[in-house]
Amino acid sequence: MAVITLTTDFGTADWFVGTMKGVIVSIAPRATVVDITHDIPPGDIRACAFALAAGCRFFPKGTIHVAVVDPGVGSQRSAIIVQTKDYLFIGPDNGVLSFVLNHETVRAVHRITKDEFFLKPLSATFHGRDVFAPVAAHLSRRTPIERLGPRLKHYVRLDWAKARRVGKEVRGEVVYIDRFGNAITNIDGPTLSGLPPSVCEVFVKRNRLCTLSSHYQAVPRGEAVAVINSCNLLEIAVSGGSAANSFRLKTGTAVSVRSR
Amino acid sequence: MAVITLTTDFGTADWFVGTMKGVIVSIAPRATVVDITHDIPPGDIRACAFALAAGCRFFPKGTIHVAVVDPGVGSQRSAIIVQTKDYLFIGPDNGVLSFVLNHETVRAVHRITKDEFFLKPLSATFHGRDVFAPVAAHLSRRTPIERLGPRLKHYVRLDWAKARRVGKEVRGEVVYIDRFGNAITNIDGPTLSGLPPSVCEVFVKRNRLCTLSSHYQAVPRGEAVAVINSCNLLEIAVSGGSAANSFRLKTGTAVSVRSR
Amino acid sequence: MAVITLTTDFGTADWFVGTMKGVIVSIAPRATVVDITHDIPPGDIRACAFALAAGCRFFPKGTIHVAVVDPGVGSQRSAIIVQTKDYLFIGPDNGVLSFVLNHETVRAVHRITKDEFFLKPLSATFHGRDVFAPVAAHLSRRTPIERLGPRLKHYVRLDWAKARRVGKEVRGEVVYIDRFGNAITNIDGPTLSGLPPSVCEVFVKRNRLCTLSSHYQAVPRGEAVAVINSCNLLEIAVSGGSAANSFRLKTGTAVSVRSR
Repeated sequence: MAVITLTTDFGTADWFVGTMKGVIVSIAPRATVVDITHDIPPGDIRACAFALAAGCRFFPKGTIHVAVVDPGVGSQRSAIIVQTKDYLFIGPDNGVLSFVLNHETVRAVHRITKDEFFLKPLSATFHGRDVFAPVAAHLSRRTPIERLGPRLKHYVRLDWAKARRVGKEVRGEVVYIDRFGNAITNIDGPTLSGLPPSVCEVFVKRNRLCTLSSHYQAVPRGEAVAVINSCNLLEIAVSGGSAANSFRLKTGTAVSVRSR
Repeated sequence: MAVITLTTDFGTADWFVGTMKGVIVSIAPRATVVDITHDIPPGDIRACAFALAAGCRFFPKGTIHVAVVDPGVGSQRSAIIVQTKDYLFIGPDNGVLSFVLNHETVRAVHRITKDEFFLKPLSATFHGRDVFAPVAAHLSRRTPIERLGPRLKHYVRLDWAKARRVGKEVRGEVVYIDRFGNAITNIDGPTLSGLPPSVCEVFVKRNRLCTLSSHYQAVPRGEAVAVINSCNLLEIAVSGGSAANSFRLKTGTAVSVRSR
Repeated sequence: MAVITLTTDFGTADWFVGTMKGVIVSIAPRATVVDITHDIPPGDIRACAFALAAGCRFFPKGTIHVAVVDPGVGSQRSAIIVQTKDYLFIGPDNGVLSFVLNHETVRAVHRITKDEFFLKPLSATFHGRDVFAPVAAHLSRRTPIERLGPRLKHYVRLDWAKARRVGKEVRGEVVYIDRFGNAITNIDGPTLSGLPPSVCEVFVKRNRLCTLSSHYQAVPRGEAVAVINSCNLLEIAVSGGSAANSFRLKTGTAVSVRSR
């Protein structure tokens, strides 16, 4: 049984996601469709790329991951399929797939051009429904990706700010704010692995905030805490509160870790 | 395998939709349940009617569409089933089904009266769970609609403001604001078909806003754009922004199209 | 076919719920996963306990109910499985299961300790994904609960404010505000059963608000109405509006019913 995941900025207030599922169930009635999220901020390609990269690897081999944040829909931007060792990824070629592909073994990239797999008439504003959903459904029924269009050599990659070590300090930034107001950074566990947690101090905008802890409630309610989170990234939280609100954190805010 | 869709104003913050699905899976464990949306504004029958009409036709033949925006729950309002050429529609008889039925071939309408198909005890406040969910589940298992209650001749129809042509102008109004702040109008593609896009100018509240374009990014970021959308309706958007916020558009705002 | 429900405070904006489902579908591809809700206010154990209790009993026997509001994740708090006559309940041992267990016949409680059923490496911040999802999936494939860990005698119970009768008055409080702004109280139908609805007057903060009615639209639009709701609890609503906003109701607000 094939699994298809959906990650979009379509929200859940309208009929958009429902119609994508209607198209899929019409073509592939036995596919299991799982929402990763549809609440990516409108047009925020980076947030979608991050969410897809964070979520996709918990699905079984063979899963087809569809990511649609597509402000360029109807323009000349391409639609692509990427075959990796474990998964198929489908989306517009605007970088939305590029974070996850940094960590996957890419086997082939194809441009989606064969409109016999599209819904007709093809709209100019909703390729989630008219292109990506039917293509995912056909792929779940084992249509070979070669049939969808020609092989591509390159796809659009977003730059990803890497944390870097400067002397005894690791410098990074906030890359995602989650629903709890937790601020996820680009400082990963391995980069900190030389530093025992007990000696790590976390700085935000050059001001000392807290030490590194093992879990959220290691500090009293209302206090700042930094943990290595479930994506293996340094995350700044407030126990029982919102770090983003308390410390005005947002994507791009400078964060660093120093050995005491 | 039967497909059942749900379109409601129950939101997703409480247990309401989950319990509808619990009732369905108890009766029809193999049905595929798809959410169209549950975020219709509370009590907004017109918005639900529009979302259902926009979304339902992308589902396979035989799909059972359930629409529940039901401020009159517990009163004397009827519950109905409408059999069309392709689908079954179920909902309160308050107009919520009437937009979609304007475009469907209606074969039979039945009032739902046979309480052996209801959950017991029947509540006075949640017929989504106690009436519509179990009836949909039983219908998905091929219970004939005649067994649910007597045939009806009429059902409640909401009036639908049609766009009209006045000389060289087509006059309509905004009928739906979507999650992106795009304003969908009642001016459809066929009505504009005599006018080549290149000569169409779009007016909001009698002020010229923009020309008709093929897709959102045909204009620079932040500028207004009008497109024929995926429902084949004229839609006003702002590239990378919210037209509803930028131009204070809401349901009922006058929109017109003129030939240059 | 097993049914697994999820009730959490993870929201739907991020990849959290999607990854739980990815873990489940990896282990138990044929399980039916149903969301009760993911929009419990962050960390609100009582609201989750209430939503679970309100929603769970509409699912078929054998359903596995997973509840994760877990501010203590990564600390020494236990994770538990409770076998009742009809269901399995899984969650952190912080009271989130305790309201529903007041109404169920508990057969056994086990602490979840056997990490061969967990995702590896186990994170310190997301046991929804790493512990509760895989444990639910294994249980749905008939892993005996004894294999998950040792039997427990006790589990954490939250206190539940009971309504009480004082002379001719029943005194209670608001226990939940729903998406419509309806205020659900802890005054249940049976407690009022001696009082005919026609003589019941409802007081909020000691001020008379309205009488008891059979359904929401028993009063004109904009007026307060009290009904026995679909949980068999007294609920205060405003026809076509929000009682919570109109009367500043919140959890804990005093409500009473008197015979006229």
